[in-house]
Amino acid sequence: MNQPSRFERLALIQKETQVDAFLFTTPSTVKWLSNYFYNFETGPSPFQLLPAALIVQPGRTMYLLAADNETIPAFAPGFEMTIVPYASYVYEKPLDFTQQFLDKLYGIISRHNIKKAHLGIESGSLPLAVFQFLTRQFPQMKFTDVTREIAFIKAFKDRDEIDCIRAASHLCDIGQTALLKHAQEGLTELGLFSLIRLEMESSAGTRIPVMADLVSGTRTATGGGIPTNKVIQPGDLILSDITPCLNGYWGDSCNTVVVGTANSSQREAFKRVNEALHIAIQAIRPGVKAMEIDSLMRKHIGNFPHHGGHGVGTQYHEEPRIVPCNAMELVPNMVIALEPGMYNPDFGIRLEHLVLVTETGCEILTKFQHCFELIS
Amino acid sequence: MNQPSRFERLALIQKETQVDAFLFTTPSTVKWLSNYFYNFETGPSPFQLLPAALIVQPGRTMYLLAADNETIPAFAPGFEMTIVPYASYVYEKPLDFTQQFLDKLYGIISRHNIKKAHLGIESGSLPLAVFQFLTRQFPQMKFTDVTREIAFIKAFKDRDEIDCIRAASHLCDIGQTALLKHAQEGLTELGLFSLIRLEMESSAGTRIPVMADLVSGTRTATGGGIPTNKVIQPGDLILSDITPCLNGYWGDSCNTVVVGTANSSQREAFKRVNEALHIAIQAIRPGVKAMEIDSLMRKHIGNFPHHGGHGVGTQYHEEPRIVPCNAMELVPNMVIALEPGMYNPDFGIRLEHLVLVTETGCEILTKFQHCFELIS
Repeated sequence: MNQPSRFERLALIQKETQVDAFLFTTPSTVKWLSNYFYNFETGPSPFQLLPAALIVQPGRTMYLLAADNETIPAFAPGFEMTIVPYASYVYEKPLDFTQQFLDKLYGIISRHNIKKAHLGIESGSLPLAVFQFLTRQFPQMKFTDVTREIAFIKAFKDRDEIDCIRAASHLCDIGQTALLKHAQEGLTELGLFSLIRLEMESSAGTRIPVMADLVSGTRTATGGGIPTNKVIQPGDLILSDITPCLNGYWGDSCNTVVVGTANSSQREAFKRVNEALHIAIQAIRPGVKAMEIDSLMRKHIGNFPHHGGHGVGTQYHEEPRIVPCNAMELVPNMVIALEPGMYNPDFGIRLEHLVLVTETGCEILTKFQHCFELIS
Repeated sequence: MNQPSRFERLALIQKETQVDAFLFTTPSTVKWLSNYFYNFETGPSPFQLLPAALIVQPGRTMYLLAADNETIPAFAPGFEMTIVPYASYVYEKPLDFTQQFLDKLYGIISRHNIKKAHLGIESGSLPLAVFQFLTRQFPQMKFTDVTREIAFIKAFKDRDEIDCIRAASHLCDIGQTALLKHAQEGLTELGLFSLIRLEMESSAGTRIPVMADLVSGTRTATGGGIPTNKVIQPGDLILSDITPCLNGYWGDSCNTVVVGTANSSQREAFKRVNEALHIAIQAIRPGVKAMEIDSLMRKHIGNFPHHGGHGVGTQYHEEPRIVPCNAMELVPNMVIALEPGMYNPDFGIRLEHLVLVTETGCEILTKFQHCFELIS
């Protein structure tokens, strides 16, 4: 369990890529290193260039440059970081957040002797405005994209991250328990989703982003979709893939239930998908390749048109991808969602658990039981 | 009413800035010109460089480069546009969406003789990866940021846009009516929000992004906040600022109600804020300056620590900003939210309507009545 921490892994990347410092702009990376979470549910803010950027010199300094109209939460212990707010929303004068952001960035770079630095960046999220400013102000600065390196070192989690994912998994349990409690004919999919979401949000004490497939009847055949006004009918299957985000860390879970009585082919499909899930869970241990886990599930139930699973952290889909082409070996403290599915023309079934890779196997983080027929 | 359409206004900007074509990357701009809406409720997708980019040669061609794992909706009549999907989510092979995006972008530019073009861009949202690719592939290409120009020509709306905002305003009415119906002691703020949201989503037939201040009791004193587990008490005020997004266009509305009986200072404050709102509504007509409307409200109720209002469209806050420093003159077909508020140490009251500037005054788009004391 003496795996290097994410800051130690970042220092290794720094050596490999020979950068002097990092400028991170992807929200999930900023969250991962700073614990700063910006709730994105209402989209990009018209009052910000970026909700936050993070400037890191591993082992030395870390600066969070964050919009001052956002709540900056309390940070986890162990995070030594200076928070630099930039003026974002104002009403007394014209909005000027891009210049405010750049001015503060200039100050941080000037004070810390990184004017001639080689900077590790995320070129998929770094706005051109920031790059142009840096190259104009600091002509000797060099840039290297580190997106791929970051994706790989995010694949295993520190202890505090695992605690965060446990908390998000607990919300999955609450959501899946709410499904069993509230699923009934006559309710719309949106009405059912509303009850599930309220139980999760009440547990969290705040609004949370929730990604969800919540479909019923023949809509389950395609494996997913957003809840609609479709009314749940007697005999409908309900496929419920609930993916909540708590303080920036995601959980993930899926169950499929029947309202009333299932037919024999539905019951058989549920049984086989559940077996496939547990075959994968049994096979998880350090040294096994991601693609082997994927293959075990497809062998048991046939091919299905999506990944067999994926890592989960500050993104709902991370490394290790559980897909046919991924030879990455599992290591302790990876967190993996497993989600085999069978889809027929009339109905679909998918079951999912979130697991933590341990020294000897795995621990199931989502504690709810997959239960097909409701006890009413 | 023979105002130039947004495409004609874009052509004017093209002339002024002497660009040959535009590359838009801000979701609200892409929506505005292409009608393509990407629901951002679950944050940036791990399967995309960008949900979409739009390449426009006004009067000639328009290309929507969109991630193929998103649903591309039907488009409004009059949009002549080629949709170019790029491979985003795949499970059979490694994710490669950035290269896929760039390859398709290369194809569009190569085919349309804009290799040596002067391109109008949005530098706050253009990812560095795209810029670096373009400068490498097309060394003669030139770039000019047009963010500010776009912000101003978005301030007045075309007829089809006004229809979209009417539909979003109708969701505000449904939400505010649901507030009056469901507000009661014993419910949590989150529970009340859940009921309001369900009525709006049921009307829309799908999940919709909703920004909301929903606070009760002394929480109203600061003017807003996210709903929590706070239980609504007898005598509590509830401030409910409901801002839903339907197909990419926002509505906006606020009411403040009392659960039980208000005291005289609360009743007086409600009366004065309501007067301020209607003084502003009465004053709106073409030629009046935004700052004059703002000033009328502050004169009537004293200063308050936020804008007096703002434009609404594909962003929840656009030009014209109704703030002390904005000398912009109102013109027909601007859509403006007006939201005066009074905040005391113990309670706060804010009331908001959305209006459309007409040739002679304005039309109130939100049809609900501001009603302080609930009829139970």
